[in-house]
Amino acid sequence: MKIAIAKEIQVDERRVALVPEVAAKLVKQGIEVWVEAGAGERAFFSDATYEEVGVKVIGDTATLWRDADIVLKVGNFEESEVDKLREGSILIAFLNPLGDPGLVQKLSERKVTAFSMEMIPRTSRAQSMDALSSQANLAGYKSVLIAAATLPKYFPMLTTAAGTIRPAKVLVMGAGVAGLQAIATARRLGAVVEAFDIRPEVKEQVQSLGAKFVDVTLEEDTVAEGGYAKELSEKAKQHTREVLTAHVAASDVVITTAQVPGRKAPILVTEEMVTQMKPGAVVVDLAASQGGNCECTEAGKDVLKHGVTIVGPINLPSSMPVHASEVYAKNLSALLKLMATTEGELTLNFEDDIIDGACVTHNGEIRSQRVKDALGVAVTQ
Amino acid sequence: MKIAIAKEIQVDERRVALVPEVAAKLVKQGIEVWVEAGAGERAFFSDATYEEVGVKVIGDTATLWRDADIVLKVGNFEESEVDKLREGSILIAFLNPLGDPGLVQKLSERKVTAFSMEMIPRTSRAQSMDALSSQANLAGYKSVLIAAATLPKYFPMLTTAAGTIRPAKVLVMGAGVAGLQAIATARRLGAVVEAFDIRPEVKEQVQSLGAKFVDVTLEEDTVAEGGYAKELSEKAKQHTREVLTAHVAASDVVITTAQVPGRKAPILVTEEMVTQMKPGAVVVDLAASQGGNCECTEAGKDVLKHGVTIVGPINLPSSMPVHASEVYAKNLSALLKLMATTEGELTLNFEDDIIDGACVTHNGEIRSQRVKDALGVAVTQ
Repeated sequence: MKIAIAKEIQVDERRVALVPEVAAKLVKQGIEVWVEAGAGERAFFSDATYEEVGVKVIGDTATLWRDADIVLKVGNFEESEVDKLREGSILIAFLNPLGDPGLVQKLSERKVTAFSMEMIPRTSRAQSMDALSSQANLAGYKSVLIAAATLPKYFPMLTTAAGTIRPAKVLVMGAGVAGLQAIATARRLGAVVEAFDIRPEVKEQVQSLGAKFVDVTLEEDTVAEGGYAKELSEKAKQHTREVLTAHVAASDVVITTAQVPGRKAPILVTEEMVTQMKPGAVVVDLAASQGGNCECTEAGKDVLKHGVTIVGPINLPSSMPVHASEVYAKNLSALLKLMATTEGELTLNFEDDIIDGACVTHNGEIRSQRVKDALGVAVTQ
Repeated sequence: MKIAIAKEIQVDERRVALVPEVAAKLVKQGIEVWVEAGAGERAFFSDATYEEVGVKVIGDTATLWRDADIVLKVGNFEESEVDKLREGSILIAFLNPLGDPGLVQKLSERKVTAFSMEMIPRTSRAQSMDALSSQANLAGYKSVLIAAATLPKYFPMLTTAAGTIRPAKVLVMGAGVAGLQAIATARRLGAVVEAFDIRPEVKEQVQSLGAKFVDVTLEEDTVAEGGYAKELSEKAKQHTREVLTAHVAASDVVITTAQVPGRKAPILVTEEMVTQMKPGAVVVDLAASQGGNCECTEAGKDVLKHGVTIVGPINLPSSMPVHASEVYAKNLSALLKLMATTEGELTLNFEDDIIDGACVTHNGEIRSQRVKDALGVAVTQ
């Protein structure tokens, strides 16, 4: 079995799918691992560090894609890359199948067996493969560093000879993986933290991190399959905004993390709410590339509006490529374990709920119902 | 008595000398406070917030400078501003008297009574006026945020489903005010911290913040007047570099803070040491504007060299203008208390060691011996 680490082609993508430390373990299992020359460079892993652990560096891109049994990538996978894959080969990457179902269709036409890391089920057994979570954790951490570096104030309370500095007030909206890590990081830095989530059951987690939970009582069910937050009705959104307005106005920093898979992100912070914030306040919008949770967000930019800086970062995990690649590689290697026998032979067991859930195309067919729905393809069963 | 808050003219200076909260207290004491229109804008203090506390907003710069008894500024004061001052008036600002003694000469020729915030004695009584310390504290804090945001890794140790993340190793060179705050902030963020200082007596302070002290035994006296570090002999510098090389190589982040007043900063991190650092490591050089503690530093730039990012920030306090201005204003107001009687009348008591120490020009004369030395002016006593 040959596993190839392909080079990311997007300008802003600094991650690499497999780091030398993890590749070494596969090599020890008798698996042949190839890396495209320079693939790890932007994540500070030189070709030499791969070679040292027995990975073969391949200069010719076409050869690597054509001869590999499994191609590993991070994302975003582009349509131009589909034809590089050999029919019958396996691709594992972030494929954004609900946002870009057209790509999945192309992969199925190419008769590639494609695994989408976004589709790993959210079960305890699959936790070690949950790349959405491992990357969201990085984004949550980094969002707070950006907020603290942008805020014209200190985060911690400080007692100095020139008087006492009051701690910054941070409001985190959405207490998923990114939100919880944002809370933890803001607390580490000494801020006073509040958090809000439409799912009341995360209250305890929020409180255990030392943050106050902002209660917004809603009359509808707010939890979707897999523990994600559901999209709210207009009435519930309106009520939520009303409750949150005062909390936003009192905050020095607002970090928003609300995303609905495959859809435009919900607006949590309106421009009207921004006008009521303190001069110098900061919003970091982790949903910027999905349209943003704040009405003033521009993806990839820092916007100064009404005295408030709204930061709309794109792909924060890529800005921490060493650890982002390391945890992603560990996610991949856990998934690969399900595919390889102890003799290093490839087997795909579709009875396994993880293989079944994450595999979006196989034998020329789109396997995921949600992707089919996104494509508007009629169900044929 | 009329006190004027002048607008900073340097492009990168976002601070303002007096914030509304502190100005309000002076107004209550019966002092007339003026602010140049727009002076607080870049620190997020609008003219309206000054007016609300009884400060008069002055649109005409010439009037403000000519009619004020005391002009307050942050820095860097420029020669072009000298002539705006009325003869016999008082100026309080960072004047960089040892680095730019020519400016002090100009101020003396203009017969201005100039107080330089750098010259506040380092005594317990003067602590509340010690603006060098209050601003260095901001720089130390911010240096760690920059380092953490630049590092391609996490700072804290994290236990995740995708494995354990090892904490970042941070080495802080120079354990003055900036260094100690850098240590504290890096510790807050969960890094493992080592610190080095040529003054062995700071060891306990370093350890009390949870950092390890790197011992470099030197045979010469290392502490100068005022508790600052002394410039070392070439032999001692060489020995220090040898001991530090291994510590630098093992670090993910190195923060350097060594400055000698009025002189070029000492080189602590040579290019040779940088080549031995890990790929992706980060150096933040707080002495960048004094030539840098690292041989690879370029002031005002991020340099990627030998796989290491060397950040050479200029004027970090200005990047946190709300709190930087707030603590500076408190420093100024403590100093102003020594100059004003309870009736709001101006008196200068040169018997007071703070007034004596901080006043660099008065009645057409340069008062500070160190400034005279810097100018090469012969002593006339």
